[in-house]
Amino acid sequence: MSTSKHQKIISSLLATLAALAALCGCNAAVAQDLKGKYVKTSTGYLMVLRNGDNVIANLERLAIEEKIPTASFMGIGFMREATFGFYDFSRKAFDPKTFRNVEVASLTGTIAWKGDKPSIHAHGLVTDASFAGSGGHLLDLTVGTGSSEITIIVHSERFERFVDPAIGANVLGLPGHQ
Amino acid sequence: MSTSKHQKIISSLLATLAALAALCGCNAAVAQDLKGKYVKTSTGYLMVLRNGDNVIANLERLAIEEKIPTASFMGIGFMREATFGFYDFSRKAFDPKTFRNVEVASLTGTIAWKGDKPSIHAHGLVTDASFAGSGGHLLDLTVGTGSSEITIIVHSERFERFVDPAIGANVLGLPGHQ
Amino acid sequence: MSTSKHQKIISSLLATLAALAALCGCNAAVAQDLKGKYVKTSTGYLMVLRNGDNVIANLERLAIEEKIPTASFMGIGFMREATFGFYDFSRKAFDPKTFRNVEVASLTGTIAWKGDKPSIHAHGLVTDASFAGSGGHLLDLTVGTGSSEITIIVHSERFERFVDPAIGANVLGLPGHQ
Repeated sequence: MSTSKHQKIISSLLATLAALAALCGCNAAVAQDLKGKYVKTSTGYLMVLRNGDNVIANLERLAIEEKIPTASFMGIGFMREATFGFYDFSRKAFDPKTFRNVEVASLTGTIAWKGDKPSIHAHGLVTDASFAGSGGHLLDLTVGTGSSEITIIVHSERFERFVDPAIGANVLGLPGHQ
Repeated sequence: MSTSKHQKIISSLLATLAALAALCGCNAAVAQDLKGKYVKTSTGYLMVLRNGDNVIANLERLAIEEKIPTASFMGIGFMREATFGFYDFSRKAFDPKTFRNVEVASLTGTIAWKGDKPSIHAHGLVTDASFAGSGGHLLDLTVGTGSSEITIIVHSERFERFVDPAIGANVLGLPGHQ
Repeated sequence: MSTSKHQKIISSLLATLAALAALCGCNAAVAQDLKGKYVKTSTGYLMVLRNGDNVIANLERLAIEEKIPTASFMGIGFMREATFGFYDFSRKAFDPKTFRNVEVASLTGTIAWKGDKPSIHAHGLVTDASFAGSGGHLLDLTVGTGSSEITIIVHSERFERFVDPAIGANVLGLPGHQ
């Protein structure tokens, strides 16, 4: 085999390797860049949160940044910490319990306002290696070594929560007939 | 201090108190009026139910009043009573169990029709002070000393439930290819 | 009573019976035909699956047939088998558990893509005659002697899942700011 033939083969191989490296680098760059926390959809937003992200704080941030009037959401995810509270009417306070490294099997709630601050009302259920479901009224939620996908459906009118004196709890106020 | 100065201070204080009272009265009136059970949204309806409201009855009423062809819904809330049924195929009946003063951590279902009557099919999960989740096929649901927020997504075509003779249970009939 | 009168009554009865039979046959035919697996709605699709249908496979088929860019879904149903997996980070594999003849009290997830194949990410909770809830990350799901109703909300942009090297798990990649 002539030296020129060798050179041709080597240069061809190098070009292929360079192309493969470029392709691989490009794909890695694309995947690494795809860390946006939310995108707009025709019915609202799709949110993807990652390890360490606080779900409630990110929903509040979305409400403020995107000037969401009111919204409903549903979601799933893997959580580092999920804290639920069951309301004790005698103490007028939530008895909290925190679950760690759990799947959120179901997350459902609404985004509304209380004065000029977003007010998130969320319920959910978490499961661990035993698969048993636990949950209720959500007080706090932080994504773990996985992700959380939340679908937000936006409503065009702004509604606020008020404390209903009859029950001493926040209620979403709607106008219109009873 | 002169009498006129006293009078000025007193009259200023009274004006402030009157303003505060007016402000407070106004806010209270607004909050008290915001007891509408549902509002229209761009994708359907947002429903807020209160202490004593029956969830199934209110979804049926919404279906009739708003002439909803078919709809899907999701929700949360605090319930005075939630009754679930697990179907016993040998007896061809639901074995019911009622849970009292529980959070509805998840409520999911559809509104369709059976002849000229709305037909609600709902599943859910409830939790109590132990945070353990229980639920399944919902037979009845009444809001407790809190509220229930339900998001309804309306579909423009009307679909009906039929008893599928192969299983002896109601199934939502859809046209089109299998 | 004359023979002609008898004949009239009999022929009238036969006509009524024929009409009733036709009516009954017609209704039965309609109900039997209503076995479509999904219909288009203004926000996406409504899916009804039946005894023996695999939920994940049907969502994948929908994604391909209808060229769904990305979607979110929620649902309920009665399942012959529901298999959940809890991720063991040390083994880098799911520990699976299968539940049989259970209600799906809650099903939530997303449809996205991984290359040219649809990628379904679903979480859920199931309950049995004890009403206790179990679930988490869904690995497989097959409808039992009942049905499953799933509401799909379609988003117009296509998103893909990537393995996030930091956690070794699939994550839905979104463009845009963090």
